[in-house]
Amino acid sequence: MTPGVMKYPSRMPRWEPDAHGRLREAAMALFERRGYNETTVADIAKLAGLTKRTFFRYYADKREVLFAGSEELQAALVAGVEAAPADVGPFEAAAIGLDAIAPFFEERRDFSVRRQLVIDSSTELQERELIKRERLAEAVATALRRRGTEEPAASLAAQTAIAVFHVAFGRWVSDDHRETFLEQLHEARETLSTFAPAPAS
Amino acid sequence: MTPGVMKYPSRMPRWEPDAHGRLREAAMALFERRGYNETTVADIAKLAGLTKRTFFRYYADKREVLFAGSEELQAALVAGVEAAPADVGPFEAAAIGLDAIAPFFEERRDFSVRRQLVIDSSTELQERELIKRERLAEAVATALRRRGTEEPAASLAAQTAIAVFHVAFGRWVSDDHRETFLEQLHEARETLSTFAPAPAS
Repeated sequence: MTPGVMKYPSRMPRWEPDAHGRLREAAMALFERRGYNETTVADIAKLAGLTKRTFFRYYADKREVLFAGSEELQAALVAGVEAAPADVGPFEAAAIGLDAIAPFFEERRDFSVRRQLVIDSSTELQERELIKRERLAEAVATALRRRGTEEPAASLAAQTAIAVFHVAFGRWVSDDHRETFLEQLHEARETLSTFAPAPAS
Repeated sequence: MTPGVMKYPSRMPRWEPDAHGRLREAAMALFERRGYNETTVADIAKLAGLTKRTFFRYYADKREVLFAGSEELQAALVAGVEAAPADVGPFEAAAIGLDAIAPFFEERRDFSVRRQLVIDSSTELQERELIKRERLAEAVATALRRRGTEEPAASLAAQTAIAVFHVAFGRWVSDDHRETFLEQLHEARETLSTFAPAPAS
């Protein structure tokens, strides 16, 4: 995008070209360089050449830089599950939902890799990520129940699908071979299908 | 156990019959009656007829009343996985580990049910429980890798087994039919085996 020349009346807030992107990049750079705990919102705003006030127009706090978009992602996953054909089983429906959100990550591979390293550096962030993952699983279980799946199948299919997502994601962000996230998802499902859990004795 | 008549020199701490059990029961009663957040260590000690000093001989803080024994449980699960026959697959080995710890819960059904209600009442406790569950999964994955399972199979088998554990546990503590925890574990595995994940396309 080429920023055009825009004119505002003098009392309106200044237009800051791509303030959102600049804040995110400044935050990531500081998290990497200085450490997440050691970075303040003031530091981020300063590096981005913006004010704290502007930061808070985009993010509630510094953690939000890493977790923005979680709700949208969850909504897209649920929509993917809901769009699955009515005749597929619950795990397959959840897996179709995962396939639907794969492009979201694929388009942001560099950010995903950098973000993961920051997450791995902080217990607080790891815990937040774990909670986000559990919420995803609960949202998928709810979507499956709406499709008519009963318990314990709905929760089990959701939890298993999110396990596939988690393991595939971890491999994708640490993979030098540059397999796509979709390929990692499919590999994880393939591996799961080899387990052939023994029926209850 | 019948407490015998014991004599200590006067400068030794007084012998408190089953102080550990009394503190636990007092804590649970207060968590249920007053709420977890509203209960202090002083309250717990007072209701148990003991001192705060005695409380801290048994527990680091009030949360510890609910999470004591987690390390032992994890060690028992890992030992169960390690004791699985060498020729069973990774998920089966993890499931054998779960079967091995089922009696631990079975013997404490009433406590488990009460504990779960307290956990469900507090976001902080739910998060702590989630972290404990993730640690269990990581410990199982490590045990599977020691058995020679490679990635992603080790992490996937561990995560899936812990999902089975979690779902079975939730049903067991809220189940009026009084199925055993082992039965719930086996039912969850049976359900999982019906998913038949489609191989990667």
